[in-house]
Amino acid sequence: MDQKDYLAELAHKGITAKAAARRLATVPTSVKNKALNNMADALERENSCIIAANAEDVARGKKNSLPNSLIDRLMLNDARIKDMAEGLRQISRLPDPIGETIAGWQRPNGLKINKIRVPLGVIGIIYEARPNVTVDAAGLCLKAGNAVILRGGSEAIVSNTAITQVIADAAKAADIPEGAIQLVATTDRQAVNAMLRLNQYLDVIIPRGGAGLIKTVVENSSVPVIETGTGVCHTFIDGTADLDIAQEVAFNAKVSRPGVCNAMETLLVHKDVAAQFLPSMLERYHQAGVELRGCPAAIGYHPSVKTATEEDWATEYLDFILAVKVVNSLDDALEHISAYGTRHSEAIITRDYNSAKRFQNEVDAAAVYVNASTRFTDGFEFGFGAEIGISTQKLHARGPMGLPELTSIKYIIDGNGQIR
Amino acid sequence: MDQKDYLAELAHKGITAKAAARRLATVPTSVKNKALNNMADALERENSCIIAANAEDVARGKKNSLPNSLIDRLMLNDARIKDMAEGLRQISRLPDPIGETIAGWQRPNGLKINKIRVPLGVIGIIYEARPNVTVDAAGLCLKAGNAVILRGGSEAIVSNTAITQVIADAAKAADIPEGAIQLVATTDRQAVNAMLRLNQYLDVIIPRGGAGLIKTVVENSSVPVIETGTGVCHTFIDGTADLDIAQEVAFNAKVSRPGVCNAMETLLVHKDVAAQFLPSMLERYHQAGVELRGCPAAIGYHPSVKTATEEDWATEYLDFILAVKVVNSLDDALEHISAYGTRHSEAIITRDYNSAKRFQNEVDAAAVYVNASTRFTDGFEFGFGAEIGISTQKLHARGPMGLPELTSIKYIIDGNGQIR
Repeated sequence: MDQKDYLAELAHKGITAKAAARRLATVPTSVKNKALNNMADALERENSCIIAANAEDVARGKKNSLPNSLIDRLMLNDARIKDMAEGLRQISRLPDPIGETIAGWQRPNGLKINKIRVPLGVIGIIYEARPNVTVDAAGLCLKAGNAVILRGGSEAIVSNTAITQVIADAAKAADIPEGAIQLVATTDRQAVNAMLRLNQYLDVIIPRGGAGLIKTVVENSSVPVIETGTGVCHTFIDGTADLDIAQEVAFNAKVSRPGVCNAMETLLVHKDVAAQFLPSMLERYHQAGVELRGCPAAIGYHPSVKTATEEDWATEYLDFILAVKVVNSLDDALEHISAYGTRHSEAIITRDYNSAKRFQNEVDAAAVYVNASTRFTDGFEFGFGAEIGISTQKLHARGPMGLPELTSIKYIIDGNGQIR
Repeated sequence: MDQKDYLAELAHKGITAKAAARRLATVPTSVKNKALNNMADALERENSCIIAANAEDVARGKKNSLPNSLIDRLMLNDARIKDMAEGLRQISRLPDPIGETIAGWQRPNGLKINKIRVPLGVIGIIYEARPNVTVDAAGLCLKAGNAVILRGGSEAIVSNTAITQVIADAAKAADIPEGAIQLVATTDRQAVNAMLRLNQYLDVIIPRGGAGLIKTVVENSSVPVIETGTGVCHTFIDGTADLDIAQEVAFNAKVSRPGVCNAMETLLVHKDVAAQFLPSMLERYHQAGVELRGCPAAIGYHPSVKTATEEDWATEYLDFILAVKVVNSLDDALEHISAYGTRHSEAIITRDYNSAKRFQNEVDAAAVYVNASTRFTDGFEFGFGAEIGISTQKLHARGPMGLPELTSIKYIIDGNGQIR
């Protein structure tokens, strides 16, 4: 496809999405919920067609020697399609954020000002190989009254095309305006760059995927972006920690699911408890297949610990690898986290009130835990009932993003002839 | 100054600002207020030194044939310095947004989650010739616990340098960390571009100035931006309008201060009241020196109306010029606003309940008025007691931005050993 084609495609989809967004902003909750349930039913009804489309992607992926982990993420089956449908039904049961009066007041001149929650408008989602993001993102955007333009990875293009067709048709059948859910057909990477300059039509872009994708989007987008993802998360075992809690939490934070952004990457241990805590802890990691990289002091506590380099402290392994550092004080732990953390999730294990309070006050991160695993940074675990991603920026949204994070506000002002 | 120099300057200021921001986040309100009052006193005490510095800028501006309006904005005198100082004292009396618990809840597993208001971190402000922005922005950022890196226009560099020195020293004397208030010394335009890529140090950039500056920032910044400014605002006189109110509001919205973003640029009039409303209204504008550009129907109502071009409907005149259009219906007015509005401020004058509600629900803008002037879109008029700008984007902040809009959130989680 040449440049003119994908620019024309994006402009057409942008115009259509903008028109849909304008109408979607005033669609009642009942209509949106009906559409979400229609979409769920349609996915289950059309599952064989979706699986057939997906088989094409999987076959092409294998032919192109995609890694097995990617093939696994790409692959759809009955159970996964059922999960996607259930996800939509769950979204239909969540409260609708739109229309809420967040605040209201009257001015001395009699003007009545109300601050109302409204949709963002048109949301662009740029993601990678997992076709379930197509359904999930479309459902969340729709419930919050937004039109969405989806741009999935080229590996999943046939699956995503089939899925989008099914859910967009089902939404339309429930009186959702045409153009509310659209997929970019062009797989050319240049289409992503063009999308990042689509300020005329897009109100925000949310990238979902690996560090490379997110970096590309952040660096090149003139459309406002919500940055998601990278988590170099720490657990600091304070000198007063309950070491049983420390063992369980530190093990869970690393091992329960190392491939996600809220997993711990570096364990910091106060020198006062290092000798008591580290030998059994490191042995437990070793038994679980965790590769250990440590500071000189940490190396002394287990034979499997290799020397950590400067790069290790800054790396999001997303794997069964852990960096371990013995620190002299809470201050040193705070310094280390400030220098190497990515402002995602940080935890302290302590019995000391002042240490707990200082850690919570001074650590600059989306989620700061006392005596709990960093793995809880998640929209579902926080009780939001949904998650479009975890923001690691400070603008607009920080931490797990649920439906309210997919909204904006407007001021509605009632007067009776006021002039200034 | 060569490239290496300004890159080194920006990196150094970035590092210093980041360190300051980390400490500022936990500085008590009393210290910040003391600093703001110190800064105000210092401005008044050093006013002759500031005026002398400003005289250099003014003389250079005149030599370079800057337009008179720009020279006026640039010029400082005793009264203007007193206003700047009073502005800081006002900020010291505003409530401190930092530390507020916005929400708190407990999860079934016992985790206690609190959502706390925290500073954004380091804010970059890029602005033009008005040196009062230096004081205003520094004061607001400080009160909200943020470090600020200021980049004013080259026309005001000597004034801004003197002012920054005075207020930064006064802040430091009140125990505000060094580096909390800094000015970019380089006047090279390339320094702006470098600042727009300073993701490592800046959490947000807020441009304040004309359309050209804002466009440059939005298009080139990889740091998150809050877009401010452009207002192509409309007033729609509905067929049921109280025409006395319509006259006063429409006159005020255009004439009270045409050079600001919340001034009306286009007047839309329902055909049912055009013959009754427009002749006297247009004559009143004409008497006030307003140049009129209208649709074919509008031209018939006053001899001074020239033919409006397509471009007129999309132009923010910021001047004594008004576009006038007669429309057939509320729907036509909504279509026109959707096509040409900049989502800033829009007003309807009506006595019809349904028209009022439809207008407020369907117009997509930061502020939507019934029977009042668009000129009220302003932090002070809204009762915020401050204003760092008016956001025309939907992410993070929309409409007038006060102190809470200069903050982010973090989640503080208390546990007793929870794992996932």
